[in-house]
Amino acid sequence: MSRPETDIAATRARIIDAADQMIQDRGTISFTMTNLAASVGMSPANLYRFFDSKDALAEAMAGEWFAELQVIMEELVAAEMPVEEKLYQFFARRLVVKRARYEDDPVLFESYMELGDEHFEVIKGYVDLADHYMALILAEAMEQGYFSGLELDTVMSLVNTMVQPFCNPRLMPQMMHVATEERLRIVINTILNGLRANEAATINKPELHIAS
Amino acid sequence: MSRPETDIAATRARIIDAADQMIQDRGTISFTMTNLAASVGMSPANLYRFFDSKDALAEAMAGEWFAELQVIMEELVAAEMPVEEKLYQFFARRLVVKRARYEDDPVLFESYMELGDEHFEVIKGYVDLADHYMALILAEAMEQGYFSGLELDTVMSLVNTMVQPFCNPRLMPQMMHVATEERLRIVINTILNGLRANEAATINKPELHIAS
Repeated sequence: MSRPETDIAATRARIIDAADQMIQDRGTISFTMTNLAASVGMSPANLYRFFDSKDALAEAMAGEWFAELQVIMEELVAAEMPVEEKLYQFFARRLVVKRARYEDDPVLFESYMELGDEHFEVIKGYVDLADHYMALILAEAMEQGYFSGLELDTVMSLVNTMVQPFCNPRLMPQMMHVATEERLRIVINTILNGLRANEAATINKPELHIAS
Repeated sequence: MSRPETDIAATRARIIDAADQMIQDRGTISFTMTNLAASVGMSPANLYRFFDSKDALAEAMAGEWFAELQVIMEELVAAEMPVEEKLYQFFARRLVVKRARYEDDPVLFESYMELGDEHFEVIKGYVDLADHYMALILAEAMEQGYFSGLELDTVMSLVNTMVQPFCNPRLMPQMMHVATEERLRIVINTILNGLRANEAATINKPELHIAS
């Protein structure tokens, strides 16, 4: 009845849980693989059969962190819905997940941030992929006439800048009280209504925009 | 010839300089008043004649940090210029000052942030005053028809949220590469052109806004 792949996956999951628990207990990510081995009742040599370095462990932990966010983004990019709603949900749905994680355990959340800093090469791939999904949605908006006069790269960077408080997990502790879905909706609408090349802005009388 | 007030001010300034130097040398704000006394060649008792606690010293250091920013805000609120430009300069001129300080000495800058955290009651007054100046400018914009359907408090909070990367000194290290004046100009224009009550947004066809 033995199913080796499943056993390996289960043991890896158990090790990751133990690492989470250790981070929670200690309030820091600075444990060694030897500490971790002891906490799961393994010899270090045995632990290394499952994760051949702390980097490999961090990579697996990052994978778990991003898995749920990936699913959200993939679903949205493929979804049939107005691009305005798609852009809003792209940030809103991930905001809900990240906020829940933060509220569930702020110390573990901060520790994951720290883990990310120490293994940025791992995180980078996920960040780039999120940017790629965002680019698809923004390009769709541009096809519909938004962001007039701006290049996609510029739009990407400006949108990223303005939604920082809603998408940067590092700002969560500081910004959580203002980064609500209701405010995100207004920010996304502001961006869609107002973001365009410099030349066109401030020349318009605001009265021009009010008719709805 | 002795001018006691001036002497006291000069000695206080010298003590603040020594505290800055100590922070730079140590890379941390965790010095004691006894350490500081030694570094300026004073007895602790004598040091306490000038600052009766580390809190009092922190307050004076915060005062120096904010003095230049205060002048900018006061000048702008009183200035005769279009409100669009006023709002832009309100953030742009302070961004320039804060960026220069960060570039001048990132470690000292970070230490000042830490000092601010530890003495938040001191910082709070300055933050509230900056909010007050911003409210004056945003109210002026509202009189001219901007931010239709929104309350001043809501506008304040939304603008603050969207300009975080340009005004929150804590984000400076992370955001400096994107928080340029050129991008700030576009963000401010986006806010002026696009920020209004929920109902009016996304219903407009973007084409409506393009005519300039």
